Amino acid sequence: MKRVRLTVAYDGTNYSGWQTQANSVAVQDVLNRHLSELLGETIETIGASRTDAGVHALGNIAVFDTNHRMPAEKISYALNTRLPEDIRIQKSEEVPLDFHPLCVKSVKTYEYKILNRKMPLPTMRHYAHFTYVPLDVGKMRAAAQYLIGEHDFKSFCGAGAQVKTTVRRVLDIQIKKEGDLITILVTGEGFLYNMVRIIAGTLMEVGKDSYPPEHVREILAACDRETAGPTAPARGLTLVQIQYE
Amino acid sequence: MKRVRLTVAYDGTNYSGWQTQANSVAVQDVLNRHLSELLGETIETIGASRTDAGVHALGNIAVFDTNHRMPAEKISYALNTRLPEDIRIQKSEEVPLDFHPLCVKSVKTYEYKILNRKMPLPTMRHYAHFTYVPLDVGKMRAAAQYLIGEHDFKSFCGAGAQVKTTVRRVLDIQIKKEGDLITILVTGEGFLYNMVRIIAGTLMEVGKDSYPPEHVREILAACDRETAGPTAPARGLTLVQIQYE
Repeated sequence: MKRVRLTVAYDGTNYSGWQTQANSVAVQDVLNRHLSELLGETIETIGASRTDAGVHALGNIAVFDTNHRMPAEKISYALNTRLPEDIRIQKSEEVPLDFHPLCVKSVKTYEYKILNRKMPLPTMRHYAHFTYVPLDVGKMRAAAQYLIGEHDFKSFCGAGAQVKTTVRRVLDIQIKKEGDLITILVTGEGFLYNMVRIIAGTLMEVGKDSYPPEHVREILAACDRETAGPTAPARGLTLVQIQYE
Repeated sequence: MKRVRLTVAYDGTNYSGWQTQANSVAVQDVLNRHLSELLGETIETIGASRTDAGVHALGNIAVFDTNHRMPAEKISYALNTRLPEDIRIQKSEEVPLDFHPLCVKSVKTYEYKILNRKMPLPTMRHYAHFTYVPLDVGKMRAAAQYLIGEHDFKSFCGAGAQVKTTVRRVLDIQIKKEGDLITILVTGEGFLYNMVRIIAGTLMEVGKDSYPPEHVREILAACDRETAGPTAPARGLTLVQIQYE
């Protein structure tokens, strides 16, 4: 038996998210079904990040065990010929049998894209949040500085999350502006439910001058979800990569 | 009565192209229907470019006449609330009654996107042509130089085109490479049927070393479609803008 790690890219538009749920199709369902058919065994993948409905990935991680003789490196190519066009394996590789994507320490990078112009662009509609309200990127960058480091991110945690602690470490936040596209890149060792989308929603409030950059410090200190900005829509979010130690 | 010019952006993925055709939905059909409903008159737009099925636009031009009192500038906003998400008016403006999008001299800019990496990216599947064969952008740029200027582009004209002359003037071709995305920007005063896609297909052949850049001169001289590269797939093509004199 060997353990195989897949790096998975997908367009989340037509899925209920990564994780199997009743009455809807998840990325994981499609992956499990095609892997099982390819390898002639019942395959159940374990994912590293349970992205929400509509959220995209360039590099989510899935792990599974198989007795099949196919070399791990070949599985990506064989699987891609079977998968629908909105899911593509970027890499497949053998990992030690004790590698578990949820137990090994990792650094995740997400990007949140905002299209900030007068009129929406149809070709971007599934991949960026659109707003015509001009955003001040300088103020957004200033606000982001307060979020870098280890903090209690309770104000940035979506309802329904069951976690022991809401303390997380954000390693970096970079905000790029190319033409009318603003990209917020967030890197961290772990994220709470909807944390990146609430960070994006809060930075957009700062960009719109709803409150000054320094107010983000007070939002953090309040430890109250009501004080932060809205959860930005899923379509703007992409899981870029997960790096393991 | 007034004449109104619309600048129209659309995602061509789910349409049979710009022009009304039997048994399929065209961008123009959707536009005419919603304009007619909005203005309470039967509106028939005239388009500047009949983009093919799957081809996108950031700025196609459509013109129509109306007796409605709504200011031309307001029509974009009113129409966008009715249109499906894959069509968005970027601008609406009044033009002289003798303005005709096919009779006034114009400069069109198209871009052809190629995703050149080992594995396809699902989020780009409708907006770039994917190839894993490494392309030599330097050679593509050298080849493009032979196409700039006034030439008989018969070798770059798709079958079925009925035109008086196949002589056209290409004003500029720029090839950008950002990461694994190659963008070919072609600007010209007029294009033959499938011309930009055949230029892209031919430049890709050069990029793959099927023939040297200088061979493009011979392709032009042959005046024979068989000598040029294949017609690159529609999904990679976007009509960026049309500038009128």
